[in-house]
Amino acid sequence: MKELKNFFEAKSIAIIGASHSQGKIGYSVLENFVKNNFNGKIFPINPNTEEILGLRCYKSVLEVKEKIDLAIIVVPAEFVVKVLEECVKKKVFHAIVISAGFSEIGDKKQTQKLENFLKKHKNFRIIGPNCLGILDTITRIDSLFLPINRLQRPASGSISFVSQSGALGSAVIDWAAMKGYGLNRFVSYGNAMDVDESDLLEFLADDKETKVIVLYIEGVQNGKKFFFALQKASSKKPVIVIKGGTSSEGSKAVASHTGALAGNAKVFEAVIKQANAIQAKTMQEVFDFARVFALEPKMLGKKIQIITNGGGYGVLATDSVIENELELARMDNNRKKLIAKHCPSYAVIENPIDLIGDANAERYKVALEQALLDRNVNAIICILLFQVPTLEEEIIKIVREINAKKTKPLLFVSVGGNYTEKMISRLKGQNINVFDSPTAAAEALKKLFEHCKKAER
Amino acid sequence: MKELKNFFEAKSIAIIGASHSQGKIGYSVLENFVKNNFNGKIFPINPNTEEILGLRCYKSVLEVKEKIDLAIIVVPAEFVVKVLEECVKKKVFHAIVISAGFSEIGDKKQTQKLENFLKKHKNFRIIGPNCLGILDTITRIDSLFLPINRLQRPASGSISFVSQSGALGSAVIDWAAMKGYGLNRFVSYGNAMDVDESDLLEFLADDKETKVIVLYIEGVQNGKKFFFALQKASSKKPVIVIKGGTSSEGSKAVASHTGALAGNAKVFEAVIKQANAIQAKTMQEVFDFARVFALEPKMLGKKIQIITNGGGYGVLATDSVIENELELARMDNNRKKLIAKHCPSYAVIENPIDLIGDANAERYKVALEQALLDRNVNAIICILLFQVPTLEEEIIKIVREINAKKTKPLLFVSVGGNYTEKMISRLKGQNINVFDSPTAAAEALKKLFEHCKKAER
Repeated sequence: MKELKNFFEAKSIAIIGASHSQGKIGYSVLENFVKNNFNGKIFPINPNTEEILGLRCYKSVLEVKEKIDLAIIVVPAEFVVKVLEECVKKKVFHAIVISAGFSEIGDKKQTQKLENFLKKHKNFRIIGPNCLGILDTITRIDSLFLPINRLQRPASGSISFVSQSGALGSAVIDWAAMKGYGLNRFVSYGNAMDVDESDLLEFLADDKETKVIVLYIEGVQNGKKFFFALQKASSKKPVIVIKGGTSSEGSKAVASHTGALAGNAKVFEAVIKQANAIQAKTMQEVFDFARVFALEPKMLGKKIQIITNGGGYGVLATDSVIENELELARMDNNRKKLIAKHCPSYAVIENPIDLIGDANAERYKVALEQALLDRNVNAIICILLFQVPTLEEEIIKIVREINAKKTKPLLFVSVGGNYTEKMISRLKGQNINVFDSPTAAAEALKKLFEHCKKAER
Repeated sequence: MKELKNFFEAKSIAIIGASHSQGKIGYSVLENFVKNNFNGKIFPINPNTEEILGLRCYKSVLEVKEKIDLAIIVVPAEFVVKVLEECVKKKVFHAIVISAGFSEIGDKKQTQKLENFLKKHKNFRIIGPNCLGILDTITRIDSLFLPINRLQRPASGSISFVSQSGALGSAVIDWAAMKGYGLNRFVSYGNAMDVDESDLLEFLADDKETKVIVLYIEGVQNGKKFFFALQKASSKKPVIVIKGGTSSEGSKAVASHTGALAGNAKVFEAVIKQANAIQAKTMQEVFDFARVFALEPKMLGKKIQIITNGGGYGVLATDSVIENELELARMDNNRKKLIAKHCPSYAVIENPIDLIGDANAERYKVALEQALLDRNVNAIICILLFQVPTLEEEIIKIVREINAKKTKPLLFVSVGGNYTEKMISRLKGQNINVFDSPTAAAEALKKLFEHCKKAER
């Protein structure tokens, strides 16, 4: 197993190719470290500059007297091996090579040079080349050269995300940040000349901060290695995989894009299933599954209670529960009577529990508490429609309190415009899962149930 | 065919049960008319008040000397027939009855009274009872009693939306407003004691301002009438239907929610297909299909050109195109050469056209222009990833210009956080379709192609 810890936990970092020209990658990477208040030491390396962003600049890593744990390399392709050799001399054995200009543009000479280096130094670990590298929300190592005003960084969470595509990866974490989905570690590994998806799976499988692994993958070099890594990781935590190049045309697009083979889609699907990993079809699905795995308690059965203040969404939620092979829970009659006491006579306290259009926070409180206590209920889908003014802001406090002490999965669904978004944003960061459709919530519960059942065996 | 024009185009409106107590429905309805700058005359009716919101209040419609086109009724159920009888005397023959307390709560007495009234006055048209009524973005008739700070009103557009569920309908238009999807007419028709979904379909089929009809339906009273109305409307414009109660459990939820029969899901599906309407599964799908029908030109074939600045999304788009039974276009070689001239040598000018991570607005301009001109291309999916700073704001201007003169469907896909959302919002209101995943874009193009093929016959 490759030693990858330094990539994520380095305490002193050399940025080789740091630049004082705004707009250059060598500037952006350094700027992000400075702006993010990285806790460790940063050594900008550039033979032609004395100081960048207030930091002393070194001619090479050899000039630095202190220990360096990790090098981030942004020099042009033809200089990469030269600076790597200097790293070896300085006893730096981990490098993120952001620089492009290797196999992805068909440059055999530079590729060969880097391959030879890696053969010569078998204990040297490289992520890349041609990658964004790493974003670690805990240690704040952030080699993404995209500026924060274009690409928001997500809050800390327990989902780690490995992406074969840098552009897709960065779009997705930007989106995840806006959505309030917490991330732990993100890796864009580019051409994977040394560290590949399998190595990263192995590392994240043992990483205590990672509860769920998400993987965007187009093709793998070593299928057998990948299968065993995926199987091992899946035995420890949920691994959700989205595959680019599932069609033969998509597979050709992969070839022209990365030079890698996408492989047969059906074979890949079988591999994922056999390895006990979870396949998703869209990035929205990936994160809908991931955040349910990350934030919800175990789901011990498939009986779902629906609570709503709008009949129509209650109906759609019921359809979605059934379509996803889950069942409607039958709550205890005494509990139903208790809820009914707090509602007008025409409220429907069955499944769905329809608290009716003029429901207030108090009605939700009683219904949620009783459903959470009821042994006949394994999970809850609770629909909150904020268009009606009777649903006061107090609901936010109640949802937070109830969610904090839940002992079974509790997913919220809320659909609406700016006011609704404002309310939802106040639930974010509180480990509350809010979905924008009952369908998405039910699909995520199905995956959670399947996973819990497998894990039991 | 029922005469429904007054519901949408009334120039003088009585609000019967108008109230000066904030928080009451009779206040909200009147307030919305005043705030929305309704162009016609408004007559608040309330025997116990002299003035509300600066408007003179009348004891009954009979006290009003001027002509009244439409009554909006918010009095308690037991007074509804009494005020309706006054409407008859005043020669008002259209009423939106918002008041609840009829069959939906099992009140047979009030239901019977209203039924008798309708039997007696066969030329009297009622929408409701137990409904939100109408939102017309052109005439600004707006009987929705939900305040604007909770429920945004959408901009004018050419999609009309009929919803059997008021709560679902209001959540969806609130969401549509935020998303920037333009709406024409929205109707929540409640218990449908007189005007039902079929009548509304007939009306909207002939409505020139409506290009696409969207229908959320749980169950119908008269299946045959519905089938013919749906078939006739579908022969004139696309009708997209989403059905609540597709599972037998969902169907039971419908029964307890509305008292109507949901009917067998499979029968319903067959009816929709036979009538040439389009079925959708989620509200997101409904509006993804609807806005493509509303804003895109005819799609004459199934050859799609993909343009991207991120390889991974190009791959996912390719997969989605193939999964949706569309094909990859093969552009003319001279056009491809022209695009290549504006790109670095390692850009891939095939399908997808990968303009590479550092693509600027100029590269997109050339690629879009050539793809639009190319006879081998029937539609375009253009992916814009804003995480890279090389994609300048100028792209907005270019996209607007190119979109305005397009002669084939052109869908944009953009994924990201706050900066991306800001850019997307600048494209809204310009009749530009932006999707949040290539999958959604390809699914919508599939529906558009199928519809155009049918319409040709």
